[in-house]
Amino acid sequence: MSELKSDQYWMQRAIELARLGQYSTKPNPNVGCVIVKDGQLIGEGFHPKAGQPHAEVFALRQAGGNAKGATAYVTLEPCSHYGRTPPCAEALVKAQVRKVVVACSDPNPLVAGKGVQILRDAGIEVAIGVCEALAKTLNFGFLKAMSTGLPYVRLKIASSLDGRTAMASGESKWITGTAARQDVQHWRAFSGAVITGIQTVLVDDCELNVRSLDKVDIETVVQPKRIVLDRQGQLPLSAKILQNPETVMVMTPFRQELADLGVIQLPPQPLNQLLQTLAQQYQIYDVLVEAGATLSTAFLQQGLVDEMISYVAPTLLGQSARAMFNAEFSQMAEQLRFELVDVTQLGQDIRLRLLPIQEMI
Amino acid sequence: MSELKSDQYWMQRAIELARLGQYSTKPNPNVGCVIVKDGQLIGEGFHPKAGQPHAEVFALRQAGGNAKGATAYVTLEPCSHYGRTPPCAEALVKAQVRKVVVACSDPNPLVAGKGVQILRDAGIEVAIGVCEALAKTLNFGFLKAMSTGLPYVRLKIASSLDGRTAMASGESKWITGTAARQDVQHWRAFSGAVITGIQTVLVDDCELNVRSLDKVDIETVVQPKRIVLDRQGQLPLSAKILQNPETVMVMTPFRQELADLGVIQLPPQPLNQLLQTLAQQYQIYDVLVEAGATLSTAFLQQGLVDEMISYVAPTLLGQSARAMFNAEFSQMAEQLRFELVDVTQLGQDIRLRLLPIQEMI
Repeated sequence: MSELKSDQYWMQRAIELARLGQYSTKPNPNVGCVIVKDGQLIGEGFHPKAGQPHAEVFALRQAGGNAKGATAYVTLEPCSHYGRTPPCAEALVKAQVRKVVVACSDPNPLVAGKGVQILRDAGIEVAIGVCEALAKTLNFGFLKAMSTGLPYVRLKIASSLDGRTAMASGESKWITGTAARQDVQHWRAFSGAVITGIQTVLVDDCELNVRSLDKVDIETVVQPKRIVLDRQGQLPLSAKILQNPETVMVMTPFRQELADLGVIQLPPQPLNQLLQTLAQQYQIYDVLVEAGATLSTAFLQQGLVDEMISYVAPTLLGQSARAMFNAEFSQMAEQLRFELVDVTQLGQDIRLRLLPIQEMI
Repeated sequence: MSELKSDQYWMQRAIELARLGQYSTKPNPNVGCVIVKDGQLIGEGFHPKAGQPHAEVFALRQAGGNAKGATAYVTLEPCSHYGRTPPCAEALVKAQVRKVVVACSDPNPLVAGKGVQILRDAGIEVAIGVCEALAKTLNFGFLKAMSTGLPYVRLKIASSLDGRTAMASGESKWITGTAARQDVQHWRAFSGAVITGIQTVLVDDCELNVRSLDKVDIETVVQPKRIVLDRQGQLPLSAKILQNPETVMVMTPFRQELADLGVIQLPPQPLNQLLQTLAQQYQIYDVLVEAGATLSTAFLQQGLVDEMISYVAPTLLGQSARAMFNAEFSQMAEQLRFELVDVTQLGQDIRLRLLPIQEMI
């Protein structure tokens, strides 16, 4: 590590570090920090978990007195407020670093720029925007929630090549293979909540929890809330999902027996209002919708989906099998088009990442 | 070009040359040849068109007297029979090459090995099987037809993410984008025939010809036969496809007006028998099926498809739009599964190349 590396190089290292907290920091953002002096890495850290120190603190601790005159690379603007820990901007000032390179500004309009201001007031040089696009991918949900009050919503759908999710009978095990199903575990673990509909719970008796992740100790994962939309109050108390009631939320007319289990209940409300409630009252910033066609179609048609994660299996199930999307359009002009941003082969299946195009073309 | 290259290197060059004939040699196979001496390329050629010399002849002409003692790389076993040209195996013997490296043997059991035998009898060293898998991709149709009497059948389907090919009204322009549609031109130009159903002709008034190819003069392309399956004899004489009747074939009860146009007519027959007829009577070895769901489903369910080329557009058309595959299955065990052999992004669409798995899993 003796040669002089570019700002991009060190920021990418900070982003890699940030990603180590991707399953455990929620509702806090993922943040990484590296401290470099004379082209040498002298300290690094990431935020591991809410309540534990921020990335800058770990990196400064490692650098010690050596931080004086160094450059700090941080994936998100250092905080300026006293929370469970003192402001990181002040810690950087105190350590007398010479320069701070920031990937993303703080998106919250009330605090944006304050961290940077503290640094500049102390005479520290600040550069903003290095690897910004990549750094944003760490925290789509946090960034969206801070600026709009709504979570980032991912809709997961697994279908056959002919767009079917199950046979007419409901039989669906398994359309996609193990690699695709394992990939879903990543998105669950990354999310603050997984939303499903009561029909999916009644038919599949699914748990929607995180059971295994590649190279990650499952004990370190902050499990997502499992949210069942149950407007008629049909959820049976014997449902498997209620075996761990502390991470379950149900949108239902109030039921005393669910309250007795310690399940959080939400009054029936429109989907857009529900999303607002989740972000603003429960600090749930990344939502994964894993539901049947009716609920998936409702999220899509109401324009509430930020990204669709579509797993396609190389199989044909026939026209009496269940459709993945049950809207009824009569003209091409009504179609729901997406921008394709990624194609990945997972075993024998493919995963498409798609962004809805809001204006019809 | 002074260093010594491996057999693989030179055979890949011969395969690249062979591919230059991919749109023009039908019904002949694509063949390329390079001649190498002391690590230097001294001659190369490919078969450009039926009736013109074979690849070896061009390469030997270029090498001249220098071919004595050289090594010839040929993508397909040199022919041993007098056709429109003298046997290439004898030309190689006459040129006194020292060694011949062959990628694929001749698949026709009646002639397989005879070309090689002529070479060996003359004391020429022969190696077979270098880059065989790659060389076979040049001539799937020819190789299959020579060994089984049936053409290689590619089924092209363009659909939305939810497996729809058109709105209920038939409106379908355009689900996929220009890059995907341009890719279809390649498969048409590569094929001996494009098969469609009468419904597709009646609804779309399609021509199914090759109109443009990337970096290829369209005049050099041997246009595929366009075959309409019209068991009831409904094809209107005003159909655009009949504007160039010399490349049209119709499977229909006999109609004098079609005979007057010079259109080849085939009596109505089962699909498997039709394919046999095309290969054995018309030397059509690569068939592209571009049809609606009914005919596509029939080819698939009768096990007649060698490869499905599936273009998927990032859009949802809804459940009243037309299904790409209209079989009716009630259990997962009936599904038609495929092996995914290639995924390619084409503009905003993806292309999947899929091989049907004959035994259900």
